[in-house]
Amino acid sequence: MTTQRRVRRGRRPGTRDTRGEILAAAQNAFAEGGLSGVSLRGIATGAGVDVALIHHYFHTKEELFLATMQIPLPIHELVAPLTAGGTDGLGEHLLRTMLAIWESDLQASLVASLRTAVDEPATTRSMQEFMTAEVLGQVLHTLPYPETEANRRLGLVASQLGGLMIGRYILKLPALVDMSVEELAVAVAPTLQRYIDGPVDGVQY
Amino acid sequence: MTTQRRVRRGRRPGTRDTRGEILAAAQNAFAEGGLSGVSLRGIATGAGVDVALIHHYFHTKEELFLATMQIPLPIHELVAPLTAGGTDGLGEHLLRTMLAIWESDLQASLVASLRTAVDEPATTRSMQEFMTAEVLGQVLHTLPYPETEANRRLGLVASQLGGLMIGRYILKLPALVDMSVEELAVAVAPTLQRYIDGPVDGVQY
Repeated sequence: MTTQRRVRRGRRPGTRDTRGEILAAAQNAFAEGGLSGVSLRGIATGAGVDVALIHHYFHTKEELFLATMQIPLPIHELVAPLTAGGTDGLGEHLLRTMLAIWESDLQASLVASLRTAVDEPATTRSMQEFMTAEVLGQVLHTLPYPETEANRRLGLVASQLGGLMIGRYILKLPALVDMSVEELAVAVAPTLQRYIDGPVDGVQY
Repeated sequence: MTTQRRVRRGRRPGTRDTRGEILAAAQNAFAEGGLSGVSLRGIATGAGVDVALIHHYFHTKEELFLATMQIPLPIHELVAPLTAGGTDGLGEHLLRTMLAIWESDLQASLVASLRTAVDEPATTRSMQEFMTAEVLGQVLHTLPYPETEANRRLGLVASQLGGLMIGRYILKLPALVDMSVEELAVAVAPTLQRYIDGPVDGVQY
């Protein structure tokens, strides 16, 4: 009885159901193939829907990925202003954007997903690809660096931003929790700015 | 048969047994009370041994804690040279010490324990207390800062070091994995040095 009801509930027709089936198919696909190994077309086939429906509900593969992690972030809206401006003040802008996201209602979901990412290899791979390619990558690859240098700077930015978020929101180190967003901006933005356009290898010293 | 053998092996008399019983008692105690809520005397009682035996096997509470996480690090030997010198080049010295530890045979244990710390609240608390109070704290509190400023600088150092270790050794971000220790020292040491003795609040800018 209970089982039958569950099955029926999962398959009842209508809008929310389609969305849910896409999400479920995406979750399986990302767990198996990671972000880069998965195509929207493959997920559409898995969910038995047209690929246009996925675009309708989730816009992009990256937002679909965030949705499977229960983080409804409009990535394209967030990244656009960061890539519009050039490097001036970009460290601070990036830091404030990240802190605003983490200080929002999304904090619990972000904590949960970062925990999962650290704990599960498959999610780690997706999360890692997502962070580097889709968010920071979009920002840093607009700058005029050779590919390898852009990647290196991106890794350095990720190390500081990631460590700050983990220290403040997951490990809850008192010193980091006690600092305001303003104080963090003053202390940490110069680090990000140097990683973005300052000297980060021996040659430039 | 098998079960009996296991029981016998776990309880055979002699040196390793006492050490194991101390470790087991410590593991329980830290999981319940965190690093600060636990005394060596309490652990000694739990293990049914004299507290002197704990000192004999593990030297300090901090090393006992590391032993419960299977990280046999001689903390007092590592921290001493870092606190001996003053702040000149301390950022680089600290970074190289941490990288040397993470590049050693201990890497697998460190990865496992950091994963656990991010995942389990009780371990998180112990790990957090350990990192801040025992390692970085010992280094930063030798410098002439008021308590709150020392703590803030310590939190900033922890955010960069922690993020680097997580990015390179747990998430394995290619950009960070591909950098040599030398390259990391050049890129990241100035960040740590600024957090140690550079301007990190608005007042000093």
